[in-house]
Amino acid sequence: MITPQIPKGFRDFLPEKKIIRQQIIDHIRSIFETYGFVPLETPCLEYAETLEGKYGEEGDRLIYKFLDRGGRAVALRYDLTIPLCRVISMYPELVKPFKCYQIAPVWRADKPQKGRFREFYQCDIDIIGTASVLADAELMSIMYAVLTKLGIANFTIHINHRKLLNAVAVSAGIREGEVTTFLRSLDKLDKVGKETVSGELKEKGFSAGSIERAFAIIEEAGTSDNHKAFLEKVGSLIQGTAGGEQGVAELMIIREALEAQGIPERGYCFDLSLARGLDYYTGPVFETRVETPKVGSITGGGRYDNLIGLFCKTPYPATGTSFGLERLIAVLEEMAGQDTRLSKTQVLVALFDKSLLGETVRVAKMLRDAGINTEIYFEADKLKRQLTYAANKSIPLVVILGSDEFKNGTVALRNMQLGQQEIIAQNDLVHTVKERL
Amino acid sequence: MITPQIPKGFRDFLPEKKIIRQQIIDHIRSIFETYGFVPLETPCLEYAETLEGKYGEEGDRLIYKFLDRGGRAVALRYDLTIPLCRVISMYPELVKPFKCYQIAPVWRADKPQKGRFREFYQCDIDIIGTASVLADAELMSIMYAVLTKLGIANFTIHINHRKLLNAVAVSAGIREGEVTTFLRSLDKLDKVGKETVSGELKEKGFSAGSIERAFAIIEEAGTSDNHKAFLEKVGSLIQGTAGGEQGVAELMIIREALEAQGIPERGYCFDLSLARGLDYYTGPVFETRVETPKVGSITGGGRYDNLIGLFCKTPYPATGTSFGLERLIAVLEEMAGQDTRLSKTQVLVALFDKSLLGETVRVAKMLRDAGINTEIYFEADKLKRQLTYAANKSIPLVVILGSDEFKNGTVALRNMQLGQQEIIAQNDLVHTVKERL
Repeated sequence: MITPQIPKGFRDFLPEKKIIRQQIIDHIRSIFETYGFVPLETPCLEYAETLEGKYGEEGDRLIYKFLDRGGRAVALRYDLTIPLCRVISMYPELVKPFKCYQIAPVWRADKPQKGRFREFYQCDIDIIGTASVLADAELMSIMYAVLTKLGIANFTIHINHRKLLNAVAVSAGIREGEVTTFLRSLDKLDKVGKETVSGELKEKGFSAGSIERAFAIIEEAGTSDNHKAFLEKVGSLIQGTAGGEQGVAELMIIREALEAQGIPERGYCFDLSLARGLDYYTGPVFETRVETPKVGSITGGGRYDNLIGLFCKTPYPATGTSFGLERLIAVLEEMAGQDTRLSKTQVLVALFDKSLLGETVRVAKMLRDAGINTEIYFEADKLKRQLTYAANKSIPLVVILGSDEFKNGTVALRNMQLGQQEIIAQNDLVHTVKERL
Repeated sequence: MITPQIPKGFRDFLPEKKIIRQQIIDHIRSIFETYGFVPLETPCLEYAETLEGKYGEEGDRLIYKFLDRGGRAVALRYDLTIPLCRVISMYPELVKPFKCYQIAPVWRADKPQKGRFREFYQCDIDIIGTASVLADAELMSIMYAVLTKLGIANFTIHINHRKLLNAVAVSAGIREGEVTTFLRSLDKLDKVGKETVSGELKEKGFSAGSIERAFAIIEEAGTSDNHKAFLEKVGSLIQGTAGGEQGVAELMIIREALEAQGIPERGYCFDLSLARGLDYYTGPVFETRVETPKVGSITGGGRYDNLIGLFCKTPYPATGTSFGLERLIAVLEEMAGQDTRLSKTQVLVALFDKSLLGETVRVAKMLRDAGINTEIYFEADKLKRQLTYAANKSIPLVVILGSDEFKNGTVALRNMQLGQQEIIAQNDLVHTVKERL
């Protein structure tokens, strides 16, 4: 006999979990489609060379890699962005801008720990083929719509711009080639605080003067309450740097678009300390932080105008964001408490009298044809046992066909929560069931 | 630069394909739920030992296997049945009968050819924990409902019973231990004909007499037009064999249940030559064959009362069927012809006048809030280019905000198919768009 077990860091989703996951995914999909996004699916396995060298040294180590039977190195998908870039370069016929969503599992051979798995879902939306920041603004509007419609209220979308950040770094005296290294440390400001970041930067060899000047600019800009005034102030601080001015101008357009979408000022902020770790971002970057429950960032993304260039000669400007589906589900589960469902069945038709087998099946069919989720109990067990089954699966209504009642053209309908039973005409069953649900 | 390509036998589903797949899957899911089935999801990776030795020698060779970073042998899921058996034994708390569905990809390192892929979806429904053949009959009803509701008309569900087949074999003089080997050849009768099967059986060492006797019983039984009369005749042919009598009695109940479900007699047949290759079936076996288009079997399954016993001591009777989702999709695509959709967008709001950016976004929001799938064009390109985009993506309506019209409280609505444009009040836009769609 084989011990039934699954590899560490992997999960089974039993129905009560899977029902919730499926509902959330369906809901998110329908919102994406309202904005004209279409679904895309890529294979779980890619050639290893497609993935390698894209996620940094540590990322590369976490790729599940192996040789296929033909001896070629293949790998399980590590994220959804690189496969998308491969798709864009393989199928130049796709109409641009190409607006797509992907909701699919990815794999990372990471150390499993609470909330971190080796197989988990990502949920990405991307817009390929336009440099317009209206596209970035649209992604933010969608983040806002998704979270709001899921009932999450206390969140803020943090927005920054890589060109603006570069301008800040350069204004502080950091050389062009070192800006990325600088930003990677700066990205931790929110989590670990100024002193730790400052220490790390000094270790990396940045001068105390540069570090101080960069912090001074960020602090002088403050945080944005009045977003328009904030952007004007930042504009004056980085005046004269071409990239910085472009960054501020683009953030201004984003602000205008978000306002037109009816997103309140408290729903987002411009945050000069937001860097987003990945090297490949080139324009606006954004992430959403949820305050209660305090789970940190729940979406993250940005513009990556040069990434597709790794696969083809046509430069496709692109922007995208990822929803942390696993965290989103965790938040919603916490909000819902114990309100999980063991089934979606609405009516159980008991098999009370074996001689009425055909009639029992017919009644179930009648209910299903009316769109009511209906189960038949498969064995002519004692009624008590059949009711226990309904109770265990939280099925609200049970229909019982007794032979006497049946001859009179009636059935018994039992309300499991009230423990009450009523005798109703068979012709009224569908109608009455719909009323009682 | 990396050449963008995917491993052989793997596929990208671009939006026009993925939209159809998603619609079919959603439709099938909703039918399963009407019958009280709940979704289940297992990891893509299992320990290799969980899968090995379950699929026969050839099957084992096709498993994608590799060592994880901890040096343990893991494997990509080969089907959905074995992971389900593992789940049942790992979580004894699951309420029985446990009725679940799974729709998910599986992997087989097979030689790719037309219609055969290394990564493909399976769609399974299973009922665990009841020996009642009403469960088997329910699976058949669901097959019937799914195919009918998908618009497939010319199909027949072929039904047989392993115990009845055993009785036929034993009646023909074949020894108990050799029945499985015998049935594996018999299973090909429909595809390759009597002579080839007979030849293969002789090669395997079965006596000409036994083979003839087996064929004689199958032929004498004929095929079922009048199902009840057929089963009575078969009953008389195998009289005296305990298993055979049980088989016929169970098929009788299945017939009664199918009739009660309103399934016409021509929708199914009892077919003594149906064996279903897999060794693990113990009771009713069934598959659906589609006649036009001639694609062969599109669902297949049966009762497997002993399989879960490989993982745990509790014997769980079980029955299940698999829908050949890939074939189903191929059939539906053939039926639909070229009617594929490049997008689900209903309205494009053109960005005609840059100074009206905010208003353009607001109009799009108004349409989305009314449940209309709406895109904004992201750049203030020439109108002709924006209309070309709408045409390329088959978006039926385009809203254009000109500054003069806008001041008068109107917008232009263009019907792409008719090439006509009308001026309407902004307040009437949602209403008019819904009328025009």
